[in-house]
Amino acid sequence: MKLAVLVSGSGTNLQAILDAEKRRELGGTVALVLSNVAGVKALERAAQAGVPTRVLSHREHASREAYDRALVGALREAKVELVALAGFMRIVTGTFLDAFPGQVVNIHPSLLPAFPGMHAQRQALAHGVRLTGCTVHFVDGGLDSGPILSQAAVPVLDGDDEARLTARILVEEHKLYPAALRAIAEGRVSVSGRRVIIRS
Amino acid sequence: MKLAVLVSGSGTNLQAILDAEKRRELGGTVALVLSNVAGVKALERAAQAGVPTRVLSHREHASREAYDRALVGALREAKVELVALAGFMRIVTGTFLDAFPGQVVNIHPSLLPAFPGMHAQRQALAHGVRLTGCTVHFVDGGLDSGPILSQAAVPVLDGDDEARLTARILVEEHKLYPAALRAIAEGRVSVSGRRVIIRS
Repeated sequence: MKLAVLVSGSGTNLQAILDAEKRRELGGTVALVLSNVAGVKALERAAQAGVPTRVLSHREHASREAYDRALVGALREAKVELVALAGFMRIVTGTFLDAFPGQVVNIHPSLLPAFPGMHAQRQALAHGVRLTGCTVHFVDGGLDSGPILSQAAVPVLDGDDEARLTARILVEEHKLYPAALRAIAEGRVSVSGRRVIIRS
Repeated sequence: MKLAVLVSGSGTNLQAILDAEKRRELGGTVALVLSNVAGVKALERAAQAGVPTRVLSHREHASREAYDRALVGALREAKVELVALAGFMRIVTGTFLDAFPGQVVNIHPSLLPAFPGMHAQRQALAHGVRLTGCTVHFVDGGLDSGPILSQAAVPVLDGDDEARLTARILVEEHKLYPAALRAIAEGRVSVSGRRVIIRS
C-alpha cells in the first residue's frame, strides 16, 4: 500500500514512519512526503530516506477548496491509498476527505476526546490531569473528532512544563503511529460506527 | 484523620477503603459510613468492619439544601475531617461543600475531563475510545470538574460491553481511591489552582 505523509515542520513522526518502513514494520511504502511549507526539516528527512517530496504552498492558492483540489491531484498522481497527517498545520476540507474516504488518519497529542485542537499538552497541564497521551484517529469533518484507532497513556509529572510533557508524549507517538498505519496497510482495520476493530 | 464514606449502593469502593484501613494503608480511620438509601450492601460491609453507620434518607428532607444541612450535622457530630463519596448518588450543594472546603473527594469511572456525569463507561464505549480509566478528584460545584488527584488508565477491549468494562475499571478504582485518601490523610497533598501536588 502506498502512503503519503503530510507535514509542515520538523517531522519527527514522519521519521518514525520512515524508520518503521526501513525495518519492514510499516506494511506499506511512503510514496510521497508533501509539505505546505518549503524548507522544513521533514523534507530533509524524506530526501535522506530517498522518498519523493513535494511542496504545495497554501499561499499560492486562493481558497482552502482550491488548495485541497491541488492536494488531491498531487496525491492521486502518486497513486496514494492512505494519507497520514503528521504535524500538517492545515484544516482539511470535505473536498479532500471525500476524495479519500476512510483513508486519512491523524495523530493528536492527547487522549481524545479530551483536549482537541491546538496546544493539547498546554490544555492538559492547565486542566491538571495526571494522565494524558496520544491518539491516532481517522479524520472527519470535525476537530479531532473522527473514529479512534489507538491510544497510549502518558503520565503528567509534578513540575512538568509544556516542553517536557510534549517530549514524553512524542516517545509514545513514535511507536503508536507506525503501528496504526501498519494495521491499516495490512487490511486489519474495520470501522463500525465510531468503534474501530483492529485484528491482530 | 477521621473519614466518612458516603454511599448509595453495593459499596465496593467502600470495601477497598476498609480493607486498606485494616492493612494500615489508609493513614486514617473510617469513622462513619453514611447512606442515603436504607438496606444497601454498603451498610452491611460497614457493620461487618465494625464501623458506625447512618442512613439519612433524601425522602425525609424537603429540599437538597435541607438534606445537605442534615448531612453536615451528621458529619460534624462524627468529627469527620475528610469525606469520600463512593457511589453516592446525590448531587451535593454549596451548603455541604462550604462546610468541608477542600475536604470532599470523589472517584469517577473515566479519565476526566472525558465522559463526566452518569454512565461514563457507556459514554466511553459509544465514543469508541481505546483507553479509559478512573479519576479521583476534589469535589467542587460542577459536574465531576474539581481538581484531579490521581488517574489510572484502563484499556477498552474489542467486544467489551458496559459490564465488562465497568468491572475492569473497578479493579483500578479499588487501588486508586485508598491510595489517594491516604495521601490526603498523611498531609502530602497540596492544591495550587487546578494542579494537585502529591509528595511521596
